[in-house]
Formats: sequence, structure tokens, C-alpha cells
Amino acid sequence: MPDTDNQPLPTIAILGGTGAEGSGLALRWARAGYDIIIGSRQQEKAERVTAELNEKLGEDLIRGMENPAAARAASIAVLTVPYSAHRATLESVRDEVQGKILIDVTVPLKPPKVSVVSLPEGRTAAEEAQAFLGEGVRVVSAFQNVSAVHLKDPDHPIDCDVLVTGDDPAARQVAIDLADAADARGVDAGPLANAIVAEGLTALIIGINKRYKVRGAGIRITGID
Amino acid sequence: MPDTDNQPLPTIAILGGTGAEGSGLALRWARAGYDIIIGSRQQEKAERVTAELNEKLGEDLIRGMENPAAARAASIAVLTVPYSAHRATLESVRDEVQGKILIDVTVPLKPPKVSVVSLPEGRTAAEEAQAFLGEGVRVVSAFQNVSAVHLKDPDHPIDCDVLVTGDDPAARQVAIDLADAADARGVDAGPLANAIVAEGLTALIIGINKRYKVRGAGIRITGID
Repeated sequence: MPDTDNQPLPTIAILGGTGAEGSGLALRWARAGYDIIIGSRQQEKAERVTAELNEKLGEDLIRGMENPAAARAASIAVLTVPYSAHRATLESVRDEVQGKILIDVTVPLKPPKVSVVSLPEGRTAAEEAQAFLGEGVRVVSAFQNVSAVHLKDPDHPIDCDVLVTGDDPAARQVAIDLADAADARGVDAGPLANAIVAEGLTALIIGINKRYKVRGAGIRITGID
Repeated sequence: MPDTDNQPLPTIAILGGTGAEGSGLALRWARAGYDIIIGSRQQEKAERVTAELNEKLGEDLIRGMENPAAARAASIAVLTVPYSAHRATLESVRDEVQGKILIDVTVPLKPPKVSVVSLPEGRTAAEEAQAFLGEGVRVVSAFQNVSAVHLKDPDHPIDCDVLVTGDDPAARQVAIDLADAADARGVDAGPLANAIVAEGLTALIIGINKRYKVRGAGIRITGID
């Protein structure tokens, strides 16, 4: 956990945060004391979802903005969009995230075969983001495997680890702290080339949910406690 | 577990079974009642390792043979070789495994960077095996993530699931039963295209072992009990 005694927690923009995964993270991080901005392509949608989340929180803790404004106002951007919107969203915030950390939650699923691992042209969504944004942005890959259903219920325990990959160890630590703040456990899984495992696991988990007739399968790394 | 009341358990050839992973599986499966043959490139080496394993077991349960003879005598072949020997070993048993199940345990690690996921030309070792052997062989991918150190100690609990992938559901079930017989838990993870996750996880786990200063990290699928 970050040291909350000496400095305010950073501002986080959740781009595409009106979806289930982003909203769940927003709720948990706002509750943990982070300054959260929900980003959306449309101001109106950002505000509508923000109002719903603030009602759940019982306090006006979260703000809503268009994606570029949200990214500009934050020091950390978290990208939670369907893969079909990945490139366009990155284009819309490319300038705003320079010098910052971008945590990519995107999974390159290929509908309708969403339970089969599909590799995008750039190998992983996260590596595509890093290549597109350039070296001025520290891209971290995380949070692909946590059940959105469980995230959105702030009292539901998260029985799932967050595999964190990225080429900058300090940026990985930021994401590990954010996993802890969401009541999950962040695990340092090495360089961004390893993002392929977490992105691929989402397809596996979707298939396992179907095959085992459950809703919230997840993963745990064993042997490191 | 297979139904042991009505039929004898199948004969399993562990190709490259003189290594740590193969030997550990041999010990556990022999103890569970399977007829086990250790395969090696050299008859002498197969016999030497077989003698050591039988001594551990206290009974002469395991036989040693050259890889092609082992594959010919078995109904299931399990491939536990370093990736550098993958293609040559497949070539040596191509005819012998036709009509059978081949369980590929190979991980395409790229020394010296063994903690970074590396994709081979054919995407995964398992898919390369399937492409090379043809449709007459049912290739299943499994057992990449179980610690060899734990496997070789037959009384050590295995706190790790075995992600089983393959395009034939009945063949996947055979591997799931074999995971159970080794005191691990087999999880049906879908088609062979999903083998990329289990093969990639090995590099992640090697890195996690180093980073967290442990020896036997593993993975578990949560939420399916």
C-alpha cells in the first residue's frame, strides 16, 4: 500500500471507465482514498455513470470527463475499453499521457470466439499501446483477470491475483499498490513481454466459467506467501 | 480419476523421461498404478534412471527404453524434453504415436532469458507438435507449470493446477485424470490454441520464483470448487 500519511494519493483517470471493469475499479479505488475521474468518449455518459457510482459511495468522490480531459487531469491513466476501441482511445489521449503511467487492462478478445486466445498484430494489446505511445509513457499491463461482477460489489472478496507486467519496475509497483487498494493481490510478473499470459488468461477464464458453470473464476499464484 | 475397477490403467511412455519433470511424473503415476515406460535417446540412460526410480518406489514398476520403442509400447506418450530437443524427438516417434494421445509438456523457453515469454515460430510448442504429427495424433498440452522439485518428492503436496488444452475433449479428459493421479488438479482450459497461456506461465513462474525468492511458485484457478 502507498504511504498515505505523507502525501495525497494520486489522481487516476479511468478511460472507458463507464464499463463494468472500470466502474468496479473506480468504486474500490475511490473508497480507498484515490482521486478518481471516469473518462468516456461522451461527457454526458461519463457524468451519468459517475452519478450512479457516487450514489453507491454515498459521497461525491468521483468526477466524470471526456477521455482526453480525464487523462490530462490525472497522473495515472487506466485503460478499460473493448479491444475494438483500443487504438482510437490511445490516439485520443496520446499527448495527454506523455510522462505518465498508463495501465492497460484491455484484452484482445476476438468475438464471437471469446474463449479462445487470440493474439493481435502487435502480440499483446499492452505492447501495442507501448509501441504507439512511445517511450515517454510507462505502460503497465494489469487487471485483465479480475471478475467485473465481483469488482462492482465493493464488499465481495476478490479471490484473484493481478498479474502486473511492464518494463519499468517502479511503474509496476504503482499497479501492485492499486491492486492491493482494490482488495486484490498484485503480483510482479516481469516485463511487458509477459503481458501475453494475463491477456490470454482472460479467454481461458471465460471458457472455464462456461465449462464449469460458474461466474467468477480467477487465478492465484501459489507458493509466494 | 479413471475407473480402475473394470480395466487396467493404460501404458504411458514418458519421452525424455530421464529429466526432472518426467521422472517426477513417472514416480507419481507408477505409484497410482499406471504402467510406466521411461523413454530416452539412449537405452543405457533410460535404464539407469529407471533403476533409480524403481529403487525409490521399492518395486520394479517402471521400464526403460529408447524413445521410439517406448512410444510403440504405450497408448499415451508424454513429451518432457527441453524445447531444443522438441522437433527431433517428435521426428523419432512420429510413426509410433499415430492413433494415440501425445501430451506435450514442452515449454519454448529461450535461454538465457528464461523468465520472459518467448513464442516459437508455430505459436506454441504444442501447436507445433500437432502440426508436425498430423490429425492422426490427439495432442494435449499440460503439466508445464508444476514444480519439478515438488513432483520428485512423492509426498510433497502439489499446490498447483494443471491447465489442460487440446482440440479433443476426450483426450483432454485423459490428461485431467493423469493430473489427478499425480495429486495435482487438472483444469479443462479449452482448445490447443489456449496452450499459449500454460506455456507462457512457466516463464512467469520462473521470474516470480526469482523475484519473490521462492522455489516452487505455481498457479491455481479459483472459483470452480
